[in-house]
Amino acid sequence: MDIPTYDDMLAAHERIKPHIRHTPVRTSDYLNDLTGAELFFKCENFQEPGAFKVRGATNAVFGLDDAQARNGVATHSSGNHASCLSYAAMLRGIPCNVVMPRTAPQAKKDTVRRYGGTITECEPSTTSREETFAQVQAETGGNFVHPYNDPRVIAGQGTCAKELMEQADGLDYVIAPIGGGGMISGTCLTLSHAAPETKIIAAEPEQADDAYRSFRAGHIIADDAPKTIADGLLVPLKDLTWHFVSRHVHDILTASDPEIIAAMKLTWKHLRVVMEPSSAVPLATILKNKGMFAGKRVGVVITGGNVDLDRLPWMNS
Amino acid sequence: MDIPTYDDMLAAHERIKPHIRHTPVRTSDYLNDLTGAELFFKCENFQEPGAFKVRGATNAVFGLDDAQARNGVATHSSGNHASCLSYAAMLRGIPCNVVMPRTAPQAKKDTVRRYGGTITECEPSTTSREETFAQVQAETGGNFVHPYNDPRVIAGQGTCAKELMEQADGLDYVIAPIGGGGMISGTCLTLSHAAPETKIIAAEPEQADDAYRSFRAGHIIADDAPKTIADGLLVPLKDLTWHFVSRHVHDILTASDPEIIAAMKLTWKHLRVVMEPSSAVPLATILKNKGMFAGKRVGVVITGGNVDLDRLPWMNS
Repeated sequence: MDIPTYDDMLAAHERIKPHIRHTPVRTSDYLNDLTGAELFFKCENFQEPGAFKVRGATNAVFGLDDAQARNGVATHSSGNHASCLSYAAMLRGIPCNVVMPRTAPQAKKDTVRRYGGTITECEPSTTSREETFAQVQAETGGNFVHPYNDPRVIAGQGTCAKELMEQADGLDYVIAPIGGGGMISGTCLTLSHAAPETKIIAAEPEQADDAYRSFRAGHIIADDAPKTIADGLLVPLKDLTWHFVSRHVHDILTASDPEIIAAMKLTWKHLRVVMEPSSAVPLATILKNKGMFAGKRVGVVITGGNVDLDRLPWMNS
Repeated sequence: MDIPTYDDMLAAHERIKPHIRHTPVRTSDYLNDLTGAELFFKCENFQEPGAFKVRGATNAVFGLDDAQARNGVATHSSGNHASCLSYAAMLRGIPCNVVMPRTAPQAKKDTVRRYGGTITECEPSTTSREETFAQVQAETGGNFVHPYNDPRVIAGQGTCAKELMEQADGLDYVIAPIGGGGMISGTCLTLSHAAPETKIIAAEPEQADDAYRSFRAGHIIADDAPKTIADGLLVPLKDLTWHFVSRHVHDILTASDPEIIAAMKLTWKHLRVVMEPSSAVPLATILKNKGMFAGKRVGVVITGGNVDLDRLPWMNS
């Protein structure tokens, strides 16, 4: 297991800086009053392809030597990693092949294609995804950039926490959603070295709470096909992200789908940013655990903003 | 007629700085590719009460001496000025009475009440609005802060262009929506002095194009009850805003309601910010006049972000 270091994260930041946005931190008096905490929202939804995953993807793509880059890159992803890897590959001018569940939101598929990525669809289960990917990779020979269980990706995601702590100092907590654990692992990588007093909280949908159960059990528990509105958080932890989660995460909190939708709507209304359901899980858990966060300075990562505007979750209820 | 000066604008900026946000400028490679221009979106929707009008309102409220402030402030407004004046009055701890059309979006009424403003409803016409207001002001004795035809308000709105030109230099154009003309007049006040080479464009809904017709005719034309999705732009020019519009505006461009809705959706999707229909008029007109803006650096004011998320315009079509 090749565990990325703090220096890898610093090198990643230098490598990706010309290609990513230094995203702003937003605050809302209304949401501070509502939660009793002081919230600093890091707007990774403002990355050009709409998600923090452009950090890890760009670090992987631009870290390849020319010989490696020739066959391009390949991956499987529930959506944003696919868009972001396609975007990074487009910036470098190399091919990108991605395996996506056929049920992924149309907006995410459109984005991959707009950036020149080639999509092969699979069934919405981890098993189908991994099988289909093996075929695609055998055919293309692309360099495999796993959406999160890859040291280059985790080092890239860690650059978000570096910027956040520079933009909002003295944070008591940083909270981010957890699916496979890439953002949380990057956050652990950076903060365990640079701000060990800041507690790291992972926020997870109740309906896909494998990380929560893993954390409590002390070993990885993986569900094959969980179902939640937070479609970016369906994948299980892997050895590399488990390394960081088991060592550096302070706690994992969960929220129900209705709570996630309510938090999403609150953020659209009061921060006036477009975020996807996965990104609303942190605020949903803060609202459920007000005592824990009261009076604290809390960094909240808004991980992505790619939604299908014609199918907003509160329109179905 | 008391015409505000450039120094009034500078004094306003010093007065309001502690109370407003220095809003970010956002860019989108996608929207640049689509329009052929380089667009710099000034996110006034990120003001705490969700609109640029907090600038003028705060300048008026904090410019009152203690004797004047005792009876509070009063106004009539199609929405955001009401919220913003209530917000500013709340910050100073003085009463705020507002007359609003009964048809104003519920989200805007809720915001006024949340900030402690007292609402008196009128019919959705300029005539009814002005009659009802006269009664309210007679009863309360509040200092009248007109939504736009007030030198304190125009000086306040001018601070937005000051920040924008500091954040994005060498702009060829600045484009903003026009209703009563407060934002455009403030922009004229600032840029005609500090960046006279920057052309100022006003963007207006076809279905409420009284400013466009006034500009062409050379005198103010006022409609009593226009109807457009851009509900923040229903009011006519007045003498003070006409002063600036007639002297310093380069051109007024218009867009239809379907074009405004399409531009609104594009911005939600690609800038990932929540903006109201009125704020989408500039992008709608840029898309209709690509030749004019091709290769140019264009500042675009996103004037507000208060929308009813349960009644989005593309849900009705």
